[in-house]
Amino acid sequence: MTESRTIRVGVNGYGVIGKRVADAVARQVDMELVGIADVVADWRMHAAVQRGFRVFSPEAGRVAAMRSAGIEVAGDLVDLLEAADVIVDCTPKKVATLNVAAYRCAGRKFILQGGEKHETTGHSFVAEASYAGAVGRECTRVVSCNTTSIVRTLGALKRAGLLKKARGTLLRRATDPWESHFGGIMNTLVPEAKIPSHQGPDAQSVDPELDVVTMAVKVPETLGHLHYWSVQLTRPATKAEVLEALAASSRILLIRMDDGLEAINVVKEWMTDFGRPRGDLYEVAIWEDMLTVQGEEMFFAYMVDNQAIVIPETIDAIRAVTGAERDPAASIRKTNEALEMPLSGARSARRLPNPKP
Amino acid sequence: MTESRTIRVGVNGYGVIGKRVADAVARQVDMELVGIADVVADWRMHAAVQRGFRVFSPEAGRVAAMRSAGIEVAGDLVDLLEAADVIVDCTPKKVATLNVAAYRCAGRKFILQGGEKHETTGHSFVAEASYAGAVGRECTRVVSCNTTSIVRTLGALKRAGLLKKARGTLLRRATDPWESHFGGIMNTLVPEAKIPSHQGPDAQSVDPELDVVTMAVKVPETLGHLHYWSVQLTRPATKAEVLEALAASSRILLIRMDDGLEAINVVKEWMTDFGRPRGDLYEVAIWEDMLTVQGEEMFFAYMVDNQAIVIPETIDAIRAVTGAERDPAASIRKTNEALEMPLSGARSARRLPNPKP
Amino acid sequence: MTESRTIRVGVNGYGVIGKRVADAVARQVDMELVGIADVVADWRMHAAVQRGFRVFSPEAGRVAAMRSAGIEVAGDLVDLLEAADVIVDCTPKKVATLNVAAYRCAGRKFILQGGEKHETTGHSFVAEASYAGAVGRECTRVVSCNTTSIVRTLGALKRAGLLKKARGTLLRRATDPWESHFGGIMNTLVPEAKIPSHQGPDAQSVDPELDVVTMAVKVPETLGHLHYWSVQLTRPATKAEVLEALAASSRILLIRMDDGLEAINVVKEWMTDFGRPRGDLYEVAIWEDMLTVQGEEMFFAYMVDNQAIVIPETIDAIRAVTGAERDPAASIRKTNEALEMPLSGARSARRLPNPKP
Amino acid sequence: MTESRTIRVGVNGYGVIGKRVADAVARQVDMELVGIADVVADWRMHAAVQRGFRVFSPEAGRVAAMRSAGIEVAGDLVDLLEAADVIVDCTPKKVATLNVAAYRCAGRKFILQGGEKHETTGHSFVAEASYAGAVGRECTRVVSCNTTSIVRTLGALKRAGLLKKARGTLLRRATDPWESHFGGIMNTLVPEAKIPSHQGPDAQSVDPELDVVTMAVKVPETLGHLHYWSVQLTRPATKAEVLEALAASSRILLIRMDDGLEAINVVKEWMTDFGRPRGDLYEVAIWEDMLTVQGEEMFFAYMVDNQAIVIPETIDAIRAVTGAERDPAASIRKTNEALEMPLSGARSARRLPNPKP
Repeated sequence: MTESRTIRVGVNGYGVIGKRVADAVARQVDMELVGIADVVADWRMHAAVQRGFRVFSPEAGRVAAMRSAGIEVAGDLVDLLEAADVIVDCTPKKVATLNVAAYRCAGRKFILQGGEKHETTGHSFVAEASYAGAVGRECTRVVSCNTTSIVRTLGALKRAGLLKKARGTLLRRATDPWESHFGGIMNTLVPEAKIPSHQGPDAQSVDPELDVVTMAVKVPETLGHLHYWSVQLTRPATKAEVLEALAASSRILLIRMDDGLEAINVVKEWMTDFGRPRGDLYEVAIWEDMLTVQGEEMFFAYMVDNQAIVIPETIDAIRAVTGAERDPAASIRKTNEALEMPLSGARSARRLPNPKP
Repeated sequence: MTESRTIRVGVNGYGVIGKRVADAVARQVDMELVGIADVVADWRMHAAVQRGFRVFSPEAGRVAAMRSAGIEVAGDLVDLLEAADVIVDCTPKKVATLNVAAYRCAGRKFILQGGEKHETTGHSFVAEASYAGAVGRECTRVVSCNTTSIVRTLGALKRAGLLKKARGTLLRRATDPWESHFGGIMNTLVPEAKIPSHQGPDAQSVDPELDVVTMAVKVPETLGHLHYWSVQLTRPATKAEVLEALAASSRILLIRMDDGLEAINVVKEWMTDFGRPRGDLYEVAIWEDMLTVQGEEMFFAYMVDNQAIVIPETIDAIRAVTGAERDPAASIRKTNEALEMPLSGARSARRLPNPKP
Repeated sequence: MTESRTIRVGVNGYGVIGKRVADAVARQVDMELVGIADVVADWRMHAAVQRGFRVFSPEAGRVAAMRSAGIEVAGDLVDLLEAADVIVDCTPKKVATLNVAAYRCAGRKFILQGGEKHETTGHSFVAEASYAGAVGRECTRVVSCNTTSIVRTLGALKRAGLLKKARGTLLRRATDPWESHFGGIMNTLVPEAKIPSHQGPDAQSVDPELDVVTMAVKVPETLGHLHYWSVQLTRPATKAEVLEALAASSRILLIRMDDGLEAINVVKEWMTDFGRPRGDLYEVAIWEDMLTVQGEEMFFAYMVDNQAIVIPETIDAIRAVTGAERDPAASIRKTNEALEMPLSGARSARRLPNPKP
Repeated sequence: MTESRTIRVGVNGYGVIGKRVADAVARQVDMELVGIADVVADWRMHAAVQRGFRVFSPEAGRVAAMRSAGIEVAGDLVDLLEAADVIVDCTPKKVATLNVAAYRCAGRKFILQGGEKHETTGHSFVAEASYAGAVGRECTRVVSCNTTSIVRTLGALKRAGLLKKARGTLLRRATDPWESHFGGIMNTLVPEAKIPSHQGPDAQSVDPELDVVTMAVKVPETLGHLHYWSVQLTRPATKAEVLEALAASSRILLIRMDDGLEAINVVKEWMTDFGRPRGDLYEVAIWEDMLTVQGEEMFFAYMVDNQAIVIPETIDAIRAVTGAERDPAASIRKTNEALEMPLSGARSARRLPNPKP
C-alpha cells in the first residue's frame, strides 16, 4: 500500500450514482476528486460547480455549449483522464462499454457500474465477497444495487454455513425521484416478463456458489427496492444464529418495526434525520423482528436504497484496482468510517453511533 | 334441488363486495334479489335506487335520515330477513359477527365474508375445494380475496398430485378506488409486520393439507393484488403438465405477456373492454408465459381482483347453504355461465368466448 | 334529413377514444358501425373481435401479422372507407393529418379529434356552440376534452349574458389507465412550460368571443382532469342565476360534495355504479355546493372525464357533417337519450334518471 | 439588541417542523438550542439523541416510557421552560392552544405555528410584512406554509405598487413523506369543499390590505405545494418590472424551466444537490420564464416546500419576540446567512451563491 500518495479519482457521468460517488470520494482521506464529467448543461452542472467540483466535458464538441450556459469547463475527457489515476464510469447503461477504449488508451484503471455486463470487465465486485480478486486489476464492475444486496445478505448466511438455497421476490422502485416527472408508472404493478429475473445469475457472477432464483416486479414508488426471501437453510437453526450471521456484516443494518421503522418512507426519513447526506442508506436494512425461522426455513425482508448501496462498494473498488489497499477488511473499515456507517454488530435505530458533529 | 323455486337473497352491506353480490344475484336465473341494506344515505344509496333495488335500513333509527335524503326505504333488517331465504353479509370487517344473532333469530341461512373469523361460521368456503361441506349448513364464510386465489391455484396443483409446498409473496393493493381519497399510502411500500402473514393459515381453514407460507406487503396502487410463488413440486414435472393442472379449474385464467397483458392496469382495461361489469376479473389471472418450471420447482405470478374474485364463490355458497344445488360442479357451471366466465380450458386473451350481445 | 337511411360509420384508431366512439355509434338508432381499424394485434383487437366488431387493418402490410395473431381481418382502410359514409379518425395525435388525403380521395366525410389542428379541417366542433356551422361540411374537428369542457361551461354562462372573462387553472391527469405502466409521472407535479396554455386559444377556435386564459399542470393521477376557474361576470349576480345558466346545458351535471361526491375517484365510482359503460362521465361535473359568487366574481371547479367527454360530441358531429340532422337540439337530444345522459335541468346524484334496465 | 447574550430556545414538538426549527436554531450564532420535547419514544427520538440534542418529555408521565426505550430524558416541559428564554411550539394542530397556559405560567415568550388561530396570539408573523409588530410581544404565530408564500409574493408586488387583486388555485401535497405510509390519497384529486379556502383570509391576518381569494385542492404527491395565480395589477406593467418587484425579496427565488427545473421533484433534487439540509427549499420558487404579463394582468406559478418555508420565518420570530433584534432587515439578513439563502437579487440555478464548504 502506498500510504504517501492520495488516489486521484475522476468520475465520468454525474447522475444519481455519479454525484454520490463524487461526494463519497471527496470524504475519503486517501483520495482526491480531480473532477467530474457530464454532457448536460443544466441545473445539475450548476450544482456541481457550486459544490466546488471541477467540471469536464466528455465530448470536446460540448464544451462551447456548456460554457455558454455559464459553466466553467476544465477540459474534456482526455484532460480528465490525464489528471486521474482511476476513472469511475457512472454513465447511463450501455454507454460505459463505449468508453472503455478511451480509458484503456489512456492507460487508466477504471470501474464500471452494474448496468454493464460482467464480460466487459471480467470481474464483478462486492467488497465482502470479491475484493481480493480485484486487487491490482485494470478494472472491475460494481454490480447493481439489487445484486449487491443479494450478495451481501446471502453471502453472510453462506459464510456462517447456513445457506442452502434462496428464492426471492424483488419489488423494484419504478424510477428515481429526480426523473419521476417522466417515465414512471402509475397505479399499477408491472411484472418482469421473464422468470427467473436476471439478478440471480448476476449474483452468481460475483459468487458462483450461490443457489439463488429471483422474480422481479416494478412498483409505483421512487424510494428504493424491497426484497422478500424464502431461504432453505443447511440445517435447523435458531433466529439468534441467523441474526448473528447477518450482523457479522458491517454493511447490513438490522432495523425494527417496533422502533417505528414500519415502511420504506420511514427508513428514508430516519436516514435523513440521522444526518446522512441525501438521506442515503448505504446498508441493506433487514427487519430483525419480522425475520422468521421455521425449522430449516427462513423468511425475511429488507430494503435496498438503490441510489446509495453501491457507493461504499465503489469506494472499495477504487482501492482494490489501484492496489492502494490489499486488505479487504482494511478498505471496508476506512470506507465505513468516512461514510459514518455502523461498525459491525451495530443494530437497530437506537444503537447507531452518532454522526460526527 | 328445488327447481320450481327461486332463492330469495338479501344483501346486508352495500359496499365494494355487497354491490357486486347484488348485481351477480340479479343475473342468476335461480335467484331473486329481494333487497339490499346499508346505513349510508349518500350517492351509494341513490345509485342502488336507480338500479331498481329495494333498499332497507339495517337500523330502524336510520330510516328517517335516509328518507329525508330522498331514498325510498322498504323497511329495516327484520323486514329484509322476512323477505329472504338467505342473507349475504357484506358489512365491514368485524360488524358481521354482531349481525349473526339477528340472522339466527330470524331463522335465516347466512353467508359471511373473509374479514370474519372461521370460528364464527365453523366452515370456510371456496367452491372448488369445500362446497360439499357447506351443503345444507346454516352458514358459511366465503374466504378473503387473497385466500380464495391461494386455494384455487394451489388446490388445482394439489388435485393434479403436484403440490408439495408453496411459499408466496403477496403484494396487496393499499385501498379500493372508491375510498382512495383517504386512507391510502403514497410513494412507499409497507411490509406486514409479521411473517408468516395470515393468508397461509387462512387457506388451511379451507384445506388443512396445504403446506403454504405467505409474506405480505402493501403497495401504492388500487387495482388489485399480485402474488408471486415459489412452489416445491412432488416430482419433476413439465411446464405443460403444470399448465394442464391449472387450466382444469374454470376459475383460473391463463393470460400472456406476449398478448400485451403486461401489467395489472392492462388486465383491468382488457376486462372492461371485454364487457365485464365494472371491469371485474372473477378469475385468478396467471401469466402463462412467465410461469417457469425448473426440475421440482415451479415459479409463477398471478393477479387477484380483490373486488371481484369472491363474487362467484358467494353465488355458489348461496346454492350450497340453501341446498338448492348439491352438486358443486353444477353450481359452478351455473354461476360461470351467468357471469360469462370462461369454460374450463379457455386460455389467453384470444380464446375467451364472446360475451352475450 | 334522410330518415330512411342509417349512417354508416367507420372508426379509424381503436384506442381510448376510438373504442368508446365505436360503442356509442353502436348504440345510436340512426347509425351503423361498419367496422374499426387499428394497427395493433394484441388484446385490444381480440377484445374488439369479441365485441362482434368487424376489424380492418389500416395498412395492407399489417393484414398478415394480424391474421397470424388470430384476428379475423375484414379488409384494409380502402375497404373500410368503401363501406362507410363517414370516418371518425381516432388515431394518435398528428397521425390523422396524414390520413386526410385518403379520406378525401375516397370522397368520404371525416371527423378528426382534438389532437389535430383547427386548420386541418377549418372547423372546430362543440355541439352546443358550433353544430350549425358543421352541417353538410366535408369534415370537422371535435376539440379536445379540456377545450370541450371550457366551451360547454363558459358557453352556458355566455348564453345567459353573464360571462365577461374567465381565468382557469387546469389540472391534467398524467396518462390514461390502460397505458399507466409506462410514461407516467410519480409523486410530482409538472407545470406546462408556457402560460397561457393552449386550451384558451383552442376554445376560441370554437367561439372567438370567449375571453379566456388558462394555465395547466400535469398531476399524478389517471382518472380525469380538474379545472378551477375565476370568472368575471358582466354584472353582480346571484348563485341561483349562475346555476340556472349552467343547468340549461344538458351536458353539464351539477353534483354535490354533500352527496358524498367529494373527489374525482368517487365521481368515477358513482358513474360505474350508475351503470355507465366503463364508468364514463360524458358530462362536465360541476360541484354545485362549492360554486361561489361574490358580487361580480364567480369561482368554481369541475371534473372532466378525458376519456369520455368528447364521445357525445363526436356522435353529434357525425350527424352534422353527414347532414342527417340539421337541428343541433334534435341531434343532442338523440345522442343524450342513446347514451342515457340526463335531461336538461337534472341535477345531483339523487336526481339522475334511471338507466335503462 | 443584547449582543452579549445568546437567545436560549426550546422546541416543543419534534415533528416535520420542530426538527427543522431545532436544526436551524443550532445554526444561528446568536441562539442556543436548550432542548427539544416530544411524547414519542421511537426512531424519531433516537435520531434527536444521536444529533446531540437534549430531549425533554412534555408530560412527566411519559418519562419512564421514554427511558425504558433507551432515550436519555433531560426533564419535563417545566424543566425545558426553565432553561429557555423562548419556546417554539411545533406540536400538532390544536395542541399548541392547550400549551399556552404553561408557557404563560412560566413567564416565557412563545411562538406558535400556522395550524393555530390568529386569535390565540393576536399577532400573525411573516418577517417581510409584520416583524415590527412582533418586537417585544409575548408571542406571535408564524403563519402556515401556504399563507407565508402568499404574503411573501403578493407582499412583494404590493410594495412595488403593482398589486390590485389576486386569485389563486393552490395544489396541496396530500401528506408529508415521513407519514405517507398512512393517511394519504391515491390516484385522485380532492377539492376542498369550500370556496374561498381559508388561506386568503389567513393572509389578511398578516396584511389586511391584500385583496386575495384562494381555491384549494389536495393532490397525490408528498413533495410540496404548487400555486397558480391570476393577478390584476394596478396598471399595465412590463414583465421586467414585475420580476424586479419579486426579486426584491430575499425569500423569493426566481427559477427557470429552461435550466431544466421542470417539475417540483427536480427542484427538490436541485436543493439536495445544492447541499441544503434535507433538500429544504426555504424560498418561494417562482418560475421566471413561465411568468406572463398581459396588459394589467399577470399569471404565474410557484412551488412551496411546506416542510421548510416557515423555518426562516420562525428564526426571525424568535429574534422579534425576544427583542434581540429590532430591525427586521437585520434579522432577515442574519437568518438568511446562517441558512445559506440567496442574497436579494440572486436568480436562477446558475446564480445561487456557493454553499459554505
